[in-house]
Amino acid sequence: MNFKENVIKTIKERKSALCVGLDVELNKLPAVLKNEKDPVLKFNKEIIEATKGFAAAYKPNLAFYEQFGTKGMEYFEKTLEYIGDSVIKIADAKRGDIGNTSKKYAQAFFEHFNCDAITVSPYMGEDSISPFLDREDKGVFILALTSNKGSFDFQMQKMADGRYLYEFVIEKINSWNTKKNCGLVVGATHPQMFEGIRRSAPDLPYLIPGIGAQGGDLENTVKYGFVKNDVLALVNSSRGIIFASDGADFAERAGEEAKKLRDQINSCLK
Amino acid sequence: MNFKENVIKTIKERKSALCVGLDVELNKLPAVLKNEKDPVLKFNKEIIEATKGFAAAYKPNLAFYEQFGTKGMEYFEKTLEYIGDSVIKIADAKRGDIGNTSKKYAQAFFEHFNCDAITVSPYMGEDSISPFLDREDKGVFILALTSNKGSFDFQMQKMADGRYLYEFVIEKINSWNTKKNCGLVVGATHPQMFEGIRRSAPDLPYLIPGIGAQGGDLENTVKYGFVKNDVLALVNSSRGIIFASDGADFAERAGEEAKKLRDQINSCLK
Repeated sequence: MNFKENVIKTIKERKSALCVGLDVELNKLPAVLKNEKDPVLKFNKEIIEATKGFAAAYKPNLAFYEQFGTKGMEYFEKTLEYIGDSVIKIADAKRGDIGNTSKKYAQAFFEHFNCDAITVSPYMGEDSISPFLDREDKGVFILALTSNKGSFDFQMQKMADGRYLYEFVIEKINSWNTKKNCGLVVGATHPQMFEGIRRSAPDLPYLIPGIGAQGGDLENTVKYGFVKNDVLALVNSSRGIIFASDGADFAERAGEEAKKLRDQINSCLK
Repeated sequence: MNFKENVIKTIKERKSALCVGLDVELNKLPAVLKNEKDPVLKFNKEIIEATKGFAAAYKPNLAFYEQFGTKGMEYFEKTLEYIGDSVIKIADAKRGDIGNTSKKYAQAFFEHFNCDAITVSPYMGEDSISPFLDREDKGVFILALTSNKGSFDFQMQKMADGRYLYEFVIEKINSWNTKKNCGLVVGATHPQMFEGIRRSAPDLPYLIPGIGAQGGDLENTVKYGFVKNDVLALVNSSRGIIFASDGADFAERAGEEAKKLRDQINSCLK
């Protein structure tokens, strides 16, 4: 099964296009976890248990694990175990380097950590991405149009042929998708762009950050970014779900927020 | 002391503009290390001891450590210890993410691991870079024109105003350099571009990969990329130095190659 098929199947089976971002921050952990031996792990475990019924994917962002150094990599590894194999595990790593180096990153995330997908940055071009594309079952979400303000600095600049840089990038990504394992990262903060993007990349799964804390527009994102029947999109929320409460009810509240967002996505889909 | 001053000072004191890339690969380790408890660490330690007299900087690339998972982060940490404080420690990480996330990466590499500099990718724009620029003493080498073939895919594409994307990126980087802690990554495989690049960014330190295994042009790189007196450039070689021999003389040979390249750079500088 190639990655695209896996995305379609998982979203159908779980009746959800929700991705939960596991971006843990020490100073936002609920006080009730203070006396735990490993508050970070306990937090992730409870969040995953409470949200799992509503999610198609989880996306731990590596920055939030690397901040703890060696210990953080243990947290990352354990967190992937808690997530298990019934959903899509995305390493939000935004890597990309010269060929022999990207190959090592692919090895790290696909073999060692056994993630199902990774996010990568396209700036270094084809040979920085192709080592990630060796396995058809492992997905590669390539940054196209990101959710942040800085997306205007380069991605939304016009090229000599009149297109935006991100459109130029998407065209290249289409040409790299021979194994049906490429995807796009497109921010929900650019809903007016989704129609054109979906037209230019009808076949790719999208990972869509920017809902929740970043203020993205869910309705238009689903309307223009999603594909009939196959869906082909995962909407991510991190802070809006995992830090819904800092009280003893943090897991319960995260579960409620996950359910709410899943349902909102599904009702937009109708 | 800001990062730019540190680069100038270190190159002067050590009479070297050489950066040694510590990109360790298990299948290239010398057979003599096979029975070591930690062959990777033993290798790095011996390489560092043998080359230290000739280097101004070391650059471990994170991919080669992450490939080992949690264990790899221990290797990275230990390797930084072996390198010590008399040279510049560059985390070749090519990170970059939305603001709150880049902040965590900055914390990881500058605070937790205490590196002096990091490499980052510019695709996500200013707010993905600015969290790395908080401290004037910590350097941020931003990818401008990389050494690989894929640099032609986007970096060397023309923008609407007739400039290449990488020139556009460099202009932005200049505007972010208020604390004198920005630098550029420019590949030695583009020697014909160095004159124009140095004209557009006269004030930034350059990290220059692509010499050695990648076939870059040292003479023109130094001629056009270096700056009189202050030098403001670090030429990196990884494989060409650390894997100079896979025999029992691996460290000795690495030292010889490091000395040779340092001397070549210095004689080009004259």
